Amino acid sequence: DFMEALEEVHPAFGVSEEELQQVIQNGIIHYDTVVDEILRSGELFVEQVRSSTRTPLVSILLHGPPGSGKTALGATIAQASQYPFIKLISPDNMVGYSEQQKVTAITKVFNDSYKSPLSVVVVDNIERLIDWTPMGARFSNAVLQALLVLLGKRPPKDRRLLIIATSSLRPILTDLGLSETFDSEMRVPPISSLRSLEYVLREVELFPSDQERRDATRMLEEAGFGSDRSGLNTKLQIGIKKLLSIIEMARQEPDNAAQRLTSALMGL
Amino acid sequence: DFMEALEEVHPAFGVSEEELQQVIQNGIIHYDTVVDEILRSGELFVEQVRSSTRTPLVSILLHGPPGSGKTALGATIAQASQYPFIKLISPDNMVGYSEQQKVTAITKVFNDSYKSPLSVVVVDNIERLIDWTPMGARFSNAVLQALLVLLGKRPPKDRRLLIIATSSLRPILTDLGLSETFDSEMRVPPISSLRSLEYVLREVELFPSDQERRDATRMLEEAGFGSDRSGLNTKLQIGIKKLLSIIEMARQEPDNAAQRLTSALMGL
Amino acid sequence: DFMEALEEVHPAFGVSEEELQQVIQNGIIHYDTVVDEILRSGELFVEQVRSSTRTPLVSILLHGPPGSGKTALGATIAQASQYPFIKLISPDNMVGYSEQQKVTAITKVFNDSYKSPLSVVVVDNIERLIDWTPMGARFSNAVLQALLVLLGKRPPKDRRLLIIATSSLRPILTDLGLSETFDSEMRVPPISSLRSLEYVLREVELFPSDQERRDATRMLEEAGFGSDRSGLNTKLQIGIKKLLSIIEMARQEPDNAAQRLTSALMGL
Amino acid sequence: DFMEALEEVHPAFGVSEEELQQVIQNGIIHYDTVVDEILRSGELFVEQVRSSTRTPLVSILLHGPPGSGKTALGATIAQASQYPFIKLISPDNMVGYSEQQKVTAITKVFNDSYKSPLSVVVVDNIERLIDWTPMGARFSNAVLQALLVLLGKRPPKDRRLLIIATSSLRPILTDLGLSETFDSEMRVPPISSLRSLEYVLREVELFPSDQERRDATRMLEEAGFGSDRSGLNTKLQIGIKKLLSIIEMARQEPDNAAQRLTSALMGL
Amino acid sequence: DFMEALEEVHPAFGVSEEELQQVIQNGIIHYDTVVDEILRSGELFVEQVRSSTRTPLVSILLHGPPGSGKTALGATIAQASQYPFIKLISPDNMVGYSEQQKVTAITKVFNDSYKSPLSVVVVDNIERLIDWTPMGARFSNAVLQALLVLLGKRPPKDRRLLIIATSSLRPILTDLGLSETFDSEMRVPPISSLRSLEYVLREVELFPSDQERRDATRMLEEAGFGSDRSGLNTKLQIGIKKLLSIIEMARQEPDNAAQRLTSALMGL
Amino acid sequence: DFMEALEEVHPAFGVSEEELQQVIQNGIIHYDTVVDEILRSGELFVEQVRSSTRTPLVSILLHGPPGSGKTALGATIAQASQYPFIKLISPDNMVGYSEQQKVTAITKVFNDSYKSPLSVVVVDNIERLIDWTPMGARFSNAVLQALLVLLGKRPPKDRRLLIIATSSLRPILTDLGLSETFDSEMRVPPISSLRSLEYVLREVELFPSDQERRDATRMLEEAGFGSDRSGLNTKLQIGIKKLLSIIEMARQEPDNAAQRLTSALMGL
Ligand SMILES: Nc1ncnc2c1ncn2[C@@H]1O[C@H](COP(=O)(O)OP(=O)(O)OP(=O)(O)O)[C@@H](O)[C@H]1O
Ligand SMILES: Nc1ncnc2c1ncn2[C@@H]1O[C@H](COP(=O)(O)OP(=O)(O)OP(=O)(O)O)[C@@H](O)[C@H]1O
Ligand SMILES: Nc1ncnc2c1ncn2[C@@H]1O[C@H](COP(=O)(O)OP(=O)(O)OP(=O)(O)O)[C@@H](O)[C@H]1O
Ligand SMILES: Nc1ncnc2c1ncn2[C@@H]1O[C@H](COP(=O)(O)OP(=O)(O)OP(=O)(O)O)[C@@H](O)[C@H]1O
Ligand SMILES: Nc1ncnc2c1ncn2[C@@H]1O[C@H](COP(=O)(O)OP(=O)(O)OP(=O)(O)O)[C@@H](O)[C@H]1O
Ligand SMILES: Nc1ncnc2c1ncn2[C@@H]1O[C@H](COP(=O)(O)OP(=O)(O)OP(=O)(O)O)[C@@H](O)[C@H]1O
Ligand SMILES: [Mg+2]
Ligand SMILES: [Mg+2]
Ligand SMILES: [Mg+2]
Ligand SMILES: [Mg+2]
Ligand SMILES: [Mg+2]
Ligand SMILES: [Mg+2]
Repeated sequence: DFMEALEEVHPAFGVSEEELQQVIQNGIIHYDTVVDEILRSGELFVEQVRSSTRTPLVSILLHGPPGSGKTALGATIAQASQYPFIKLISPDNMVGYSEQQKVTAITKVFNDSYKSPLSVVVVDNIERLIDWTPMGARFSNAVLQALLVLLGKRPPKDRRLLIIATSSLRPILTDLGLSETFDSEMRVPPISSLRSLEYVLREVELFPSDQERRDATRMLEEAGFGSDRSGLNTKLQIGIKKLLSIIEMARQEPDNAAQRLTSALMGL
Repeated sequence: DFMEALEEVHPAFGVSEEELQQVIQNGIIHYDTVVDEILRSGELFVEQVRSSTRTPLVSILLHGPPGSGKTALGATIAQASQYPFIKLISPDNMVGYSEQQKVTAITKVFNDSYKSPLSVVVVDNIERLIDWTPMGARFSNAVLQALLVLLGKRPPKDRRLLIIATSSLRPILTDLGLSETFDSEMRVPPISSLRSLEYVLREVELFPSDQERRDATRMLEEAGFGSDRSGLNTKLQIGIKKLLSIIEMARQEPDNAAQRLTSALMGL
Repeated sequence: DFMEALEEVHPAFGVSEEELQQVIQNGIIHYDTVVDEILRSGELFVEQVRSSTRTPLVSILLHGPPGSGKTALGATIAQASQYPFIKLISPDNMVGYSEQQKVTAITKVFNDSYKSPLSVVVVDNIERLIDWTPMGARFSNAVLQALLVLLGKRPPKDRRLLIIATSSLRPILTDLGLSETFDSEMRVPPISSLRSLEYVLREVELFPSDQERRDATRMLEEAGFGSDRSGLNTKLQIGIKKLLSIIEMARQEPDNAAQRLTSALMGL
Repeated sequence: DFMEALEEVHPAFGVSEEELQQVIQNGIIHYDTVVDEILRSGELFVEQVRSSTRTPLVSILLHGPPGSGKTALGATIAQASQYPFIKLISPDNMVGYSEQQKVTAITKVFNDSYKSPLSVVVVDNIERLIDWTPMGARFSNAVLQALLVLLGKRPPKDRRLLIIATSSLRPILTDLGLSETFDSEMRVPPISSLRSLEYVLREVELFPSDQERRDATRMLEEAGFGSDRSGLNTKLQIGIKKLLSIIEMARQEPDNAAQRLTSALMGL
Repeated sequence: DFMEALEEVHPAFGVSEEELQQVIQNGIIHYDTVVDEILRSGELFVEQVRSSTRTPLVSILLHGPPGSGKTALGATIAQASQYPFIKLISPDNMVGYSEQQKVTAITKVFNDSYKSPLSVVVVDNIERLIDWTPMGARFSNAVLQALLVLLGKRPPKDRRLLIIATSSLRPILTDLGLSETFDSEMRVPPISSLRSLEYVLREVELFPSDQERRDATRMLEEAGFGSDRSGLNTKLQIGIKKLLSIIEMARQEPDNAAQRLTSALMGL
Repeated sequence: DFMEALEEVHPAFGVSEEELQQVIQNGIIHYDTVVDEILRSGELFVEQVRSSTRTPLVSILLHGPPGSGKTALGATIAQASQYPFIKLISPDNMVGYSEQQKVTAITKVFNDSYKSPLSVVVVDNIERLIDWTPMGARFSNAVLQALLVLLGKRPPKDRRLLIIATSSLRPILTDLGLSETFDSEMRVPPISSLRSLEYVLREVELFPSDQERRDATRMLEEAGFGSDRSGLNTKLQIGIKKLLSIIEMARQEPDNAAQRLTSALMGL
């Protein structure tokens, strides 16, 4: 009846505003040019799907170490598309789902997307969606097989779909045969230069004054977090998410913030 | 009752027009003689099934690397047969099916085919149908066993059946004992000559003028995609499907198309 | 009630005429003395079961490479017995059965046989009945265990049973502990002499004249399919089933039949 | 109600006459002193259970190669006990049972036995009861665990129980931890002397005259089935069951019996 | 209702007299000082639980080779405690239970014990409770996990619990992580001195006179069952349970008892 | 209805007083500065969650050898937070739960916590929650995957959550991919200095006089439990929980307490 139809229509042509907001709560800090490059590439793919008739389906993969910002960047690209249908498929909403329930939930989002002329689906954290664990190499083959098909299945006539997937375990995806289903891949690197780190410190105003921030930076340099002469090698390898967490811990002891920051980074 | 009987009859003697169209949306580009050879061989098998009484069952395998065009070619041969019963068994329509549901769906198509005097069944992407994953060598033995029997089971008296299967993983099929059930095999190769590639570029009109296309070809030759003196070895190894996708990406930046094409090919 | 009893009785004392016909549609070509020897041995076992009181159960195994004619020979022996109960247990009729359903179906045939004074049961293609796959050495242990017992279980008093099983994977049967349940084994070899092959060509009348057949034979000899001086070694190793299939393909191009036959045999 | 109670009582205090008869249809041929020794030992265990209060439970294992006569000997000992409760637990009656159904059936027999003052239970063919297969070392752990407990569980006060188990795979029983649950073990050897074989031939009257039997024996001796000078080594190793089967095959060709017998023995 | 409540209360505050009697039917023979030491240690733990407020839970393990008397000793300690709640958890009462049923039954006993101010629970034969089999190292992880928690879970306020577990497979318990949950362990050794053996023989009156017993002992000594000069090494290693069984077999042939005893011990 | 709502609300905004009390029944003995450091760090995390808006979720891990006091310390930190929602997730309350029931129970606690502005959840004994066993590396992947998500899932807007997890098997957590979900880790060491041990002895008043305690300490020193000259190496490695248990055993024999203590420590 009508009410059911309405319900059916609602998720099919909708934007899951709230969920997207949730994952980009802390905003995007432009600590490096790579951040802008990724966002710009995303924009190009959004345009390709909108315009090319030969490729009604484009699927891309954002990969990089844990906490490097994949989900936030993927959600940002999706939201900027302004397509009528934008959906996030996230393990956060599937805790305790059985294999079959996961497959059903994932398939539903894709089927809904096929009803909109233009859609973008963010498939977040593939390793969690497939219940991957390195010990014994266990995973849900049911979810994997569903993804293998859905990531490559052409939408029906006159429908177009952009798929943005994220993962911290690209080598595993390759072993699982998932890599070759993507049209393109983009790496989201960890922060590895002192300059990027300083940029973040300034943005989040950990230190009350510029002087104190510069002092902290010098302390970090002395601790070996600067690059060597070649300007390349550096001990620093930290995802933006973990960095923001460490900064907040340091903030608990204002008098001692620089020291706590340094020792936390050394403890990684 | 009558309505049910009708429904029963309908799929049994029908051609799944729409599904076949879907997989050959982009048409067949005749970039190499091998394309025509495959189509001609297919025609011969179609004739054999129609005429020979001793072989009421013929099953063939189209194999080749991902995206080389197996499904499109298989569907084209099937459609050209003009048999009264033509059906596509595709993983795309079975997302989230349980093992048992897959077996049932597959078996139904075969049972339906046995009701038509002349039938062709395309069994697309065997590795997906059996839920194959290289990690741990997992797969659905239930679906595999059903295929092992169905691919070799003679249709009932006065019924004839052509089976066209596709796969990107021929070595696995051999390991699974599937290879020897086929009467014949045909390899669908990737595009590996610059000439074929240029042929495709011309067909899809990536470049506005012949001159620009020739310039692009020279750029590719310089990047090492031409064959060596022996005319054999070449870096180029790309399925037609992926090539068409790369071309559409390049089309997004018209001023830079040749360069993007080259670097995309190099990134494979 | 009576109707049910009738139905119960019918399969118990019946001959599955149609199924047996189906598997020997193409008849038996006597291309070699081994064919007659197998049929004669079968006859002797039929007599033993009929006459000896000490061996109310005799079970034999027909094994040989794929397509060598095991099923056709087994069915021929069974049919020639003229016992009141003759049944074929075949994977062809069990597509999509669960383990339990297979066990039930197999057990039913044996239980039915125990009601007839004289019975023959053909257990066709054991590897398929047990869902065997070489990858991971998977199989249905439930079906295997049922067979292990049923192949060795004495029928009740005053009942006699001949079991004829077929398999292409005798070594596997040994590994599974199945071999030692058989009272006797017979090997069905592939065709390996040019003389046998010529015999078959004559029977199926691939060539319009004797001269053309002889020419073809010479072509095959030149291609290396004749035996060497010792009269033993030969490249030729082909099951009668595959040979008949190749012949029909060759028949599609009458002008070119000899050549196609030769190249098909070389491609094996 | 009463009828149910009756049924309950019947198996509890009953002797499964028919089943025991079935497995010793061909009688016991006393081809060697070992046959009598086994039967006499069995008698002693029967007496121990009847008389000793300290050992209300005695469990013994009859083991030996396939067809050596374990089941027939076990059943003979059981039947000779003349205990009020004698039961055979045999895989022949459990074809297609699930693990749980097997456990239930086995447990029921033991529970029934606990109601009789004196009971003997024959647990036939342990490897088949536990669904053992060497490939992948699969077996039903549920049935195994039930046996591990039941073979060692003391019957209730004033109840006594003799357990006679049979198996062809004693090493496996040891690996499974089953061996140490038995109070005693007896080996049932295959026939390995020409004298025993001749004894059997005489008993079953394969040859119409003594002369012909002696001729056959000489033929077997020449074929190498006699013992060497030390009187020990011999090629002959055959279970009485298989021997009886081979004899019946030979009986089919009366004029050729000796030869067929010899070649069948050589073919093992 | 009231009846249910009654039933609930009954097992909660009760002593399973009968079951305990059943496992110590043959009494305790004090063949060595170690027997008394074990019983005295048990007494001390009984007192600790009764008196110390800091350790409301004490769990101990009795381990030793099969048949060394673990169950009888554990039950004896439990019975001597005179606690209001004494329960035996034994595989003998759980034949054919599913994993889940075992967990439920075990948990119920513990939950019942928590209602009594003072309780002792005997957890007999852990390897059988967890369905352990060495082949493939299979076991019920569900039961194991339940035990891992229950053996270490503090009873509620004002409740005290002594747990006595038994096992023949201490190394396996360690591998499973179970060992470290026990507060203390005691080893129940096999009989390994001729003196202990003679003590048992006297107690059970195998021989009608002292002279005959001494003769038998000398025969055993000559067979090598005495200790060597160092008084340490000895071939003798036998659990009291098996020894009692062997003695009863020997008793069947009174004239030959010493010899049968000796050969039985040598056959181990 | 209202009653249901009440029930729903109750656990959502409540402190599980009783359960927390249960695990810290024996109080905290400040035998070493590390004890205070851990408690102080805990306090800081409690403050961070209360105050920082950028980190609404903080998760920490307390790890150390069995019985080192992890649960008691975690519960103490939680209780001291005085947050409106404090909950303990403990295997003790999930004996016999199926995988799915565990996931449901765990998820419920987290979902309840999301309704409170400030919450702390103690996830006790992760290895037991996931049914970990070293043999065969078995564990519940369903529970693991739920934890992997829940430990990193941001609470909804305006909700804050502190997670305190405990484990004795940190290396396993790393292998399972769980380690990197924690914002911080703290090690709870075993007691390894004689000084700490003496501190505990004094607190629990094992000895009636100071002199006797000092004598006992000297005895322990002579047994090798003191540190070597470097003041570092020591044989002593014992969790506070086991130490308290050993002390209570020693208390059973007041005259012999020092000796029993020493030998118990040596027997570890
Ligand atoms: N340049 C940036 N790129 C991405 N995230 C950023 C950036 N600057 C700030 N952030 C913030 O950092 C956090 C990145 O976390 P996010 O969950 O996206 O990382 P992730 O790589 O998906 O982590 P995980 O591997 O755990 O899935 C977000 O809170 C985001 O708002
Ligand atoms: N000569 C050709 N042969 C096959 N496909 C062609 C050819 N020319 C153009 N195409 C187009 O290329 C695409 C080939 O994709 P197709 O799905 O058939 O490849 P595939 O090998 O089945 O891929 P996969 O390995 O993913 O199953 C189709 O869109 C088809 O229309
Ligand atoms: N001498 C022969 N022996 C057996 N089959 C023959 C012979 N001559 C002709 N045929 C025909 O050859 C075919 C043999 O096929 P059949 O299915 O019996 O082989 P198979 O060994 O059972 O094959 P598979 O290994 O696939 O089970 C049948 O169609 C049969 O009619
Ligand atoms: N001395 C004998 N001992 C045992 N069986 C004998 C003897 N003489 C004749 N027989 C006959 O030989 C056959 C032995 O078969 P039986 O099934 O008992 O062997 P088995 O060792 O149990 O075989 P399997 O290993 O297949 O279980 C029976 O038919 C029995 O009547
Ligand atoms: N000193 C003793 N200690 C233990 N049991 C004794 C002793 N003396 C006599 N017995 C008797 O010996 C038998 C010991 O058997 P019990 O079942 O207790 O051994 P167990 O070690 O538990 O065996 P299993 O390894 O099979 O579980 C009992 O019948 C008991 O009555
Ligand atoms: N300083 C201390 N730290 C922790 N616990 C202490 C301390 N002093 C005394 N205790 C007591 O020691 C016991 C510690 O046991 P607890 O269960 O917390 O250890 P655990 O490390 O969690 O053990 P498990 O590894 O078995 O989980 C508790 O009874 C606690 O009251
Ligand atoms: Mg992410
Ligand atoms: Mg395809
Ligand atoms: Mg066959
Ligand atoms: Mg037997
Ligand atoms: Mg015991
Ligand atoms: Mg703990």
